Amino acid sequence: MDRIKYAPYKDKVQTPEKAALLIKNRDVLGVSGFTKAGDSKTVLPQVAERALYEDLKVTVLSGASLGYDTDADLAKNGALYKRMPFQADPTLRKSINNHEVLYVDQHLGQTADMLQSIDTFKIDVAIIEAVAVTEEGYIIPTTSVGNSPIFTEKADKIIIEINKTFPETLAGVHDVKFLKKQPHRDVIPIRDPDTRIGVPYIKIDPEKVAAIVFTEVPDSPAVIAAPDEKTTAISNHILGFLEKEVDEGRLTESLLPLQAGIGKTANAILSGFTKSRFKNLTMYSEVLQDSTFELFDSGKLVFASASSITVTEECSRRVFGDFEKYKDKLVLRPQNISNAAEVISRLGVIGINTAIEFDIYGNVNSTHITGTKMMNGIGGSGDFARNGYLSIFACPSMSKGGKISHIVPMVSHTDHTEHDVDILVTEQGLADIRGLAPIERARVIIENCVHPEYKEQLTQYFEEAYKQGGHTPHILQKAFSWHTRFKNQGTMKIQEYADDHA
Amino acid sequence: MDRIKYAPYKDKVQTPEKAALLIKNRDVLGVSGFTKAGDSKTVLPQVAERALYEDLKVTVLSGASLGYDTDADLAKNGALYKRMPFQADPTLRKSINNHEVLYVDQHLGQTADMLQSIDTFKIDVAIIEAVAVTEEGYIIPTTSVGNSPIFTEKADKIIIEINKTFPETLAGVHDVKFLKKQPHRDVIPIRDPDTRIGVPYIKIDPEKVAAIVFTEVPDSPAVIAAPDEKTTAISNHILGFLEKEVDEGRLTESLLPLQAGIGKTANAILSGFTKSRFKNLTMYSEVLQDSTFELFDSGKLVFASASSITVTEECSRRVFGDFEKYKDKLVLRPQNISNAAEVISRLGVIGINTAIEFDIYGNVNSTHITGTKMMNGIGGSGDFARNGYLSIFACPSMSKGGKISHIVPMVSHTDHTEHDVDILVTEQGLADIRGLAPIERARVIIENCVHPEYKEQLTQYFEEAYKQGGHTPHILQKAFSWHTRFKNQGTMKIQEYADDHA
Repeated sequence: MDRIKYAPYKDKVQTPEKAALLIKNRDVLGVSGFTKAGDSKTVLPQVAERALYEDLKVTVLSGASLGYDTDADLAKNGALYKRMPFQADPTLRKSINNHEVLYVDQHLGQTADMLQSIDTFKIDVAIIEAVAVTEEGYIIPTTSVGNSPIFTEKADKIIIEINKTFPETLAGVHDVKFLKKQPHRDVIPIRDPDTRIGVPYIKIDPEKVAAIVFTEVPDSPAVIAAPDEKTTAISNHILGFLEKEVDEGRLTESLLPLQAGIGKTANAILSGFTKSRFKNLTMYSEVLQDSTFELFDSGKLVFASASSITVTEECSRRVFGDFEKYKDKLVLRPQNISNAAEVISRLGVIGINTAIEFDIYGNVNSTHITGTKMMNGIGGSGDFARNGYLSIFACPSMSKGGKISHIVPMVSHTDHTEHDVDILVTEQGLADIRGLAPIERARVIIENCVHPEYKEQLTQYFEEAYKQGGHTPHILQKAFSWHTRFKNQGTMKIQEYADDHA
Repeated sequence: MDRIKYAPYKDKVQTPEKAALLIKNRDVLGVSGFTKAGDSKTVLPQVAERALYEDLKVTVLSGASLGYDTDADLAKNGALYKRMPFQADPTLRKSINNHEVLYVDQHLGQTADMLQSIDTFKIDVAIIEAVAVTEEGYIIPTTSVGNSPIFTEKADKIIIEINKTFPETLAGVHDVKFLKKQPHRDVIPIRDPDTRIGVPYIKIDPEKVAAIVFTEVPDSPAVIAAPDEKTTAISNHILGFLEKEVDEGRLTESLLPLQAGIGKTANAILSGFTKSRFKNLTMYSEVLQDSTFELFDSGKLVFASASSITVTEECSRRVFGDFEKYKDKLVLRPQNISNAAEVISRLGVIGINTAIEFDIYGNVNSTHITGTKMMNGIGGSGDFARNGYLSIFACPSMSKGGKISHIVPMVSHTDHTEHDVDILVTEQGLADIRGLAPIERARVIIENCVHPEYKEQLTQYFEEAYKQGGHTPHILQKAFSWHTRFKNQGTMKIQEYADDHA
């Protein structure tokens, strides 16, 4: 109980089961949680549980993805009407693609603004994980800040979920600032990744707090595959490119603040920096993975700003077991500040994100399998790609034993347009398409990024299209032929080319 | 000669013919000019002229489109190797689509950043139109600022073209600030459209000035068709929507700063505001057309910020004949500030731009005809759509006597993704797609925006795709069938539906 330093809250403490009863059918919930970090571990799962026995369907807005099977259980039990702005759960994904759950795939930096500009999502209940409550009744978040500030501001009721597995030393790592709706919005005065502009807690109206629960469930641990030959090659291509930028005087050895997406490839790319010649690196990112702490430990990284910390079990022990070691090198911000266009453009962030596929003209698909099926969502990749100094997208050139080429004639869904992409990289190589016209881009992408098994086939498409003319040559009838061939024949390969490589 | 207040320049005065000889084969030129305003009227045309008789091919970077036939003559005479970041000329367009000229279609707010981050385009010669030169040898621009500051900063040599047709009272309307390359970039402290942060001239190194020429050719006048039934209907739908936002308390009667694209539709939309109930309106835009001055004259508009003024002959006489009347209500900025993500997001700009086509899920094509042929370019639409408070795209529902529907199953080129589009509008009606999942968007777009002659046909596509499942239902084999039908049969209409309406 000593984590509740505001006396009037003490009689609000109750069981998760009882707290969850505050949630009614058709409610809109704003829940903490960003890339599995700092989410509700007891109350929100109770909503899923209740949906098994009663008519309970809610809209859930979060920071980003939730941990454990919370999203899966909500979906499976029919508790979800609409979900936004991000998810990464296989069961929920299936429900979305089956039209059982409506999903709004949104730039992570823009949900707070949307809540200020439309009334569609009046938040009935906010469920926010906390490490403790201050003497004023304010919330000290755990491993993510996400959209929690705007959710508490807009909510009718707030449920606080105090997680005792996190050390109270987490207090102080957060920097929370509310942004006013335009035209009253002020400058976001962040000039460096370590600039602090707010307070280390979420200021709320204590009158809104309807329940407080305790939990001792740690964050759902990240599981990240170790770097392999392909991801290491990708990392090396990026390091080589950045070294050249330094050699030729366009960047210094501390580069510019780095952002990296989530997952194996992004983690491997960032890990690669531990053995690089760069120094005094900084991060201005949305999520910090194991690689961030590797970079701290190697002495390469001096500061990291983000909205969440999502690490493996081993890394979690290391980091939270001795948090004082890292605390003054870290800040966790609301996601409308970690992902703010204003700050990303001012600092000149180098954004490194992963693609599902990209095309010969530099358009990137980050979300949809064959143009129709949602994978996870765009996340914050667009916030960084659109407004940063450099926008890098990476993926393997080929997968499924050669059946899929990740470079295609035309992407089947566009998340990042040709105008917003600077660098494309696969294990084969890197294409710097800055300042290039589409036909120049096609040549360098085919030459540098495509797997040898697909090079001839893609060259053939480009040449046939080129002959028909046009600034961005395409043969519309064949633009998606690779995707439909994969769907119908199980491979993107045209037989004659496949035979060549047999 | 009294327009040159810096004595050492006086012996640099020469003829355009001689000044143009400073330009060598393969040079990169940075030229003033934004939407036909403030461009080089004598030196750059000389480059086109010379190319008729000698081996002269150059790369031309501008603010945006150039006036008269300059781009056409450069293209026709084979003087262009590469052109960026925007053009709107039929002859140049043809050369681009025939692969005779390389074209880089770029966000207008990002060219300056690109020049700071890559060395591909070292500017050999900057050609900048001026109304006068200050006592320190600095440039006072004419009707646009555009990219002129960065061009003069990066250029080896500068040619100044003094245009005597503009009154010297133009001096003082400009506000020029250079943005440093990251990590040294500071806050852009614009808090309102009328905030001034710089100086009213372009500070240059006088040593770089290689020639000064005089011209008495006015800006190429804008020719804008009067509002018609369709554009008036579009304007009314937008006004009605904004009125509802005010009625329901989400906006005030002065709305938020407006941005409007160029051309007949955008001009008609803005003209509509003269008869609206809104008041104390402001603009934070890139180009000001006749409608801006109509709004000033009607008392609706109190201030307008942009990068250029592009008006008809009649409006030009009115505005520049008595410029003092408007001067304190206007500011012209460099385009990396008029279009800065930081400022657009802080002010919460309402961006109103036109589309070539949009699709049932809210993706917008602003640039390509049937996915291949460049029309003009993306211009600044993406700068505003991505970072503003509201992103509105408008176009007629149908054209060419019903042969083309501007709402299609899938856009043939994506310039603005589903994530960046809030409102879609045709003369049929308006779709507010904020907070909607793709299948919800499809229903409201088909219901509100599509022409009755295409409604059944588009519903049919959506329903067939819907049955196959997926977050964004598509039948890839048929996604571009409307475009290919138009190409092969001269109409997007399927015969059976056409018969229904015969």
